[in-house]
Amino acid sequence: MSPAQTRVFPWPRLHEFCAAVFRHVGLPGEEAALSADVLSSADRRGIDSHGVARLRTYYDLISAGRINPRPRPRILRETPSTATVDGDNGLGLVVGPWANEVAIAKAAQAGTGWVSVCNTNHYGIAGYYVLQAIARDMIGWSMTNSSKGVAPLWGGERMLGTNPIAIGFPAGEEPPIVVDMATSAVAFGKIEIALREGKAIPLGWALDAEGYATTDPKAMFEGGALVALGGDREHGGHKGYGLALAVDMLCAVLSGANWGPFAPPFALRQPLPEREVGKGIGHFFGAMRLDAFRDPAEFKAQADDFVRTLRRTRPAPGTAGPLIPGDPEREAQRERDAHGVPVGAAVLDDLREISRLTGVALD
Amino acid sequence: MSPAQTRVFPWPRLHEFCAAVFRHVGLPGEEAALSADVLSSADRRGIDSHGVARLRTYYDLISAGRINPRPRPRILRETPSTATVDGDNGLGLVVGPWANEVAIAKAAQAGTGWVSVCNTNHYGIAGYYVLQAIARDMIGWSMTNSSKGVAPLWGGERMLGTNPIAIGFPAGEEPPIVVDMATSAVAFGKIEIALREGKAIPLGWALDAEGYATTDPKAMFEGGALVALGGDREHGGHKGYGLALAVDMLCAVLSGANWGPFAPPFALRQPLPEREVGKGIGHFFGAMRLDAFRDPAEFKAQADDFVRTLRRTRPAPGTAGPLIPGDPEREAQRERDAHGVPVGAAVLDDLREISRLTGVALD
Repeated sequence: MSPAQTRVFPWPRLHEFCAAVFRHVGLPGEEAALSADVLSSADRRGIDSHGVARLRTYYDLISAGRINPRPRPRILRETPSTATVDGDNGLGLVVGPWANEVAIAKAAQAGTGWVSVCNTNHYGIAGYYVLQAIARDMIGWSMTNSSKGVAPLWGGERMLGTNPIAIGFPAGEEPPIVVDMATSAVAFGKIEIALREGKAIPLGWALDAEGYATTDPKAMFEGGALVALGGDREHGGHKGYGLALAVDMLCAVLSGANWGPFAPPFALRQPLPEREVGKGIGHFFGAMRLDAFRDPAEFKAQADDFVRTLRRTRPAPGTAGPLIPGDPEREAQRERDAHGVPVGAAVLDDLREISRLTGVALD
Repeated sequence: MSPAQTRVFPWPRLHEFCAAVFRHVGLPGEEAALSADVLSSADRRGIDSHGVARLRTYYDLISAGRINPRPRPRILRETPSTATVDGDNGLGLVVGPWANEVAIAKAAQAGTGWVSVCNTNHYGIAGYYVLQAIARDMIGWSMTNSSKGVAPLWGGERMLGTNPIAIGFPAGEEPPIVVDMATSAVAFGKIEIALREGKAIPLGWALDAEGYATTDPKAMFEGGALVALGGDREHGGHKGYGLALAVDMLCAVLSGANWGPFAPPFALRQPLPEREVGKGIGHFFGAMRLDAFRDPAEFKAQADDFVRTLRRTRPAPGTAGPLIPGDPEREAQRERDAHGVPVGAAVLDDLREISRLTGVALD
């Protein structure tokens, strides 16, 4: 059942719409389709914030000349197992897959491949990239920095992005293990939902503009900040902060992108940072061939055993027991591939507006 | 000022004692000195749980024939950027540095080096290893799995170790950025301290034997479990669980070591796991040459700028502002190199007992 203002689309319909819009703003056909693949993977996997919900922003930024629709990414420096890529200010949805393929190709030759990318833009869900590595019998890594939203522990203002980390491991008969997580305690989206519903947020999610812990979602949006994974010092907030900083180092300081508070925003209306310390935002990709370390059949048999062992864990009271990382996304994908992707009213308005502006039919 | 039962030693004195004890139980001189280096690095850096406090357990396990004092680690499989190492059931304090040097040597050739290790034992502090990479102008990675102590989110029992991750980045004029963290919300040591002091622990640290969140430190030790970083679902406990699982996959499933609940315990008195799924515990090391990605001088200038920018963050109320990961350990090292390492009564008793058993003088 969907609320009245929600409409359900088969995902291929959304894919088709996104691809046509990307072609309209100047992307070559193949890259438009690839960009739509990355967005659709978010919608299918239930990560609504990172799919068609972002089409409007991509559209705006390309239309305003802030993102290059026909980038020519290039390798600035390389060794047998590494490369540094300049994304030519393209969509992350184009540059990300290109750079990830470089990591996979390096791994095919040298056992592992590691690629740091500058001069790029938002790349969709981190998990998309590790699934590409998994399909080649590799362990996949994917990270990106992003515009500031998170306070470092003991800081009273936004200095780091939500800087997600994904890492994925192939299994055999069991589905792969896919960790895909922001290094903040929660995503902005959860605070938006509380704000819309007029509800308080739990302590340990956000700070207000003065840097005090707050339960008021509005206080976070009005000059406050998200909190790093772990929350306060007592619960390990220095650890989430450390992880977020490591992501920024690997994605931006290593590649020559803007880091920390200087990462450019993902929206036309947001002000640009006070100084430039590099080019665009940064990504980091890794691929590790299983057979570089161990017989892949042995690895997969052990991964299957591990997954089944975890599923047999005695459940905590009131729960059905632990999930395997990737389970919620796989469950969403089964559901949505069968019954369609629900698109809420606000996003639907955005898509209708894009349809009107571009002439690309939505219905 | 130290409490009455505490005694302060210059760290070289503790180093000398540890090295002599390791020689006494059969380690060659060079490896005894190296093992003492790793332990001393914990004592000097203020990580009291991982320094001389563990000498008794290493001594017991070697004396009981459970750890091989003269291991010959060997490479089982390799590619230009990877190796899988069998540690021949040696001390992690010997096998870890050996395997870490393989990662560093691979990086010198192929840009990066990644080594997964089986058939090894506890390796001291994760941070020790990344400092070796930093000294060679490399980014260092270090992880290890460990015996079960942590419940996966929605699990009611111990299934994973505290599985630490360290990652370190060289800087220029500023000190390096060194993240060194367990993937549990807190270490066992913090719960031990609360137990000793008769204090409650905060919610979000531990579960009792039934799998309920508890504030009673005793309840954790009597069949309960630590909680993964993030705590409950609402605060991101699935993320800490995902990280802990990723560490186990990289250290143990990739190398052929025991994973998850089957990692052998680090104490003679603890029961062995119900089945063996590999050999010993596992480590994972990585080294990435800065110049494989970017001019090292540029990288370091940007790292310095990032560190200084973070130090200028507006402090949260009641704090002095954010630290840089590695600051607390560096501060401890300055203090302890100047004024000695305080050794508490319980550890002092252990050291005196070892002195009596081995004839190695402590005083």
